[in-house]
Amino acid sequence: MDTRPIGVFDSGLGGLTVIRELEKILPGEDIVYFGDTGRLPYGTKGKDTITKFAAQDIRFLHSFDVKAIIIACGTVSSVAFEETSAASSVPVFGVVKPAVNAAIKATKSGRIGVIGTSATIRSGTFEKEILSINPKAQVTSRACPLFVPLVESGHFEKGDNLTTLAAHEYLDELKQSGIDTLILGCTHYPLLRDIIGEVMQGVTLIDAGGEAARAAQKAFAAMNILSSNRDGGKCRFYVSDYTDDFARLASILLAHSLSGYVEKTDIEKY
Amino acid sequence: MDTRPIGVFDSGLGGLTVIRELEKILPGEDIVYFGDTGRLPYGTKGKDTITKFAAQDIRFLHSFDVKAIIIACGTVSSVAFEETSAASSVPVFGVVKPAVNAAIKATKSGRIGVIGTSATIRSGTFEKEILSINPKAQVTSRACPLFVPLVESGHFEKGDNLTTLAAHEYLDELKQSGIDTLILGCTHYPLLRDIIGEVMQGVTLIDAGGEAARAAQKAFAAMNILSSNRDGGKCRFYVSDYTDDFARLASILLAHSLSGYVEKTDIEKY
Repeated sequence: MDTRPIGVFDSGLGGLTVIRELEKILPGEDIVYFGDTGRLPYGTKGKDTITKFAAQDIRFLHSFDVKAIIIACGTVSSVAFEETSAASSVPVFGVVKPAVNAAIKATKSGRIGVIGTSATIRSGTFEKEILSINPKAQVTSRACPLFVPLVESGHFEKGDNLTTLAAHEYLDELKQSGIDTLILGCTHYPLLRDIIGEVMQGVTLIDAGGEAARAAQKAFAAMNILSSNRDGGKCRFYVSDYTDDFARLASILLAHSLSGYVEKTDIEKY
Repeated sequence: MDTRPIGVFDSGLGGLTVIRELEKILPGEDIVYFGDTGRLPYGTKGKDTITKFAAQDIRFLHSFDVKAIIIACGTVSSVAFEETSAASSVPVFGVVKPAVNAAIKATKSGRIGVIGTSATIRSGTFEKEILSINPKAQVTSRACPLFVPLVESGHFEKGDNLTTLAAHEYLDELKQSGIDTLILGCTHYPLLRDIIGEVMQGVTLIDAGGEAARAAQKAFAAMNILSSNRDGGKCRFYVSDYTDDFARLASILLAHSLSGYVEKTDIEKY
């Protein structure tokens, strides 16, 4: 048993979909969440910048004596996982491997699609990981650079005209390519599940963030570092910018109102 | 005469539309441009963060012994103009006043529209400035948070389905409100001039960045700090992140291929 908190970070608020999952499956754990809202998005930026930002995020979380870190960000997990793990003194979990394992388990045809930010897709990490496990798999990838700004500006309700049009633009070819499984490789995308699901009817959607949370749970159990706080764990939220919209958007991503400790931090000092 | 360079900065590449104008009207001037591509966008962030970033941008430009600074960013000009000017030892020019002067000159009905980023519109700066000159003006403002990501992801060609749909969502009400003049309060928006113009037929569009460039030219002449390099001025470009797409997008914003000195800088050190 280890009562130290779990550290979780993302470029912004997308990672709160991972917190939502952790709250369900690990209700006794304390969590420190950092969202780099002051410098988001990461997914349009270059590898050097993403790696540098992730190293600062890791150093910030280390200052809370965390027992493990979950990278709740598809971009960092894809572009800078090794560098980020190497910089951490505690175990680091990303979203790529858990999502890939789930997709390989789900697919029947071996045709798997991957969507994510520009940086994620450019890295080719999901594809490499899938092929390393199943070299016969056929992988079709597509960057969806507008999905994050669409979510952040509130365009995620089922039937939203703009997001539905963007989804068709990004996904029609993927659908036609005959995939039976699609990895949502960005932690914002579960918010677009209804819209993506409508365009990709009959295709199994894999939520990379949710899979990461479940994989972390198993790993914590195996490592015997689970906590068992009977009163329920506490979650502290840190962000690098606090905009007017923060509480509203956070509530949507968490699927409950944002309560507890919320603080702004100067991440550039780390 | 003053041969020192002019410093120009923006959250990213939108400010290159100002460089394009400066190259036309002040071809003899040397320019140092900084685009904070590593931390963009600014327009979705809070005032503290925007003010801090702008102070670093100013300090970076000061390191080149610039003779004046143009804030080629609607968000910084609206949210943190006073703080930014106060932090500078050389004259600072923003985009708000020049755009407001042009709009007041252009309007016949006194009904003026303003569009910009969320932070720009939330600040109310354009509206306050218009009313301080013409208290009888009627100002209608609207944040268009998706326009910057749409431009940055290449959706700016005339007839683009997604941007046209977004433009209708943002602008139909503005059109119905009966404005005859619309300030494009973000330096990315000139790229959407065709699409915005189609939705806002009969309405005069004011390009805030272009107006800022022309106002700066007049001020430099009045201050007797114009340069007159017969060989033509040189422009050096600095960015805080260098993504794959940088050169392509920069060429579009500049309306010519990106040539000359381009370097990445660590803005967080300033």
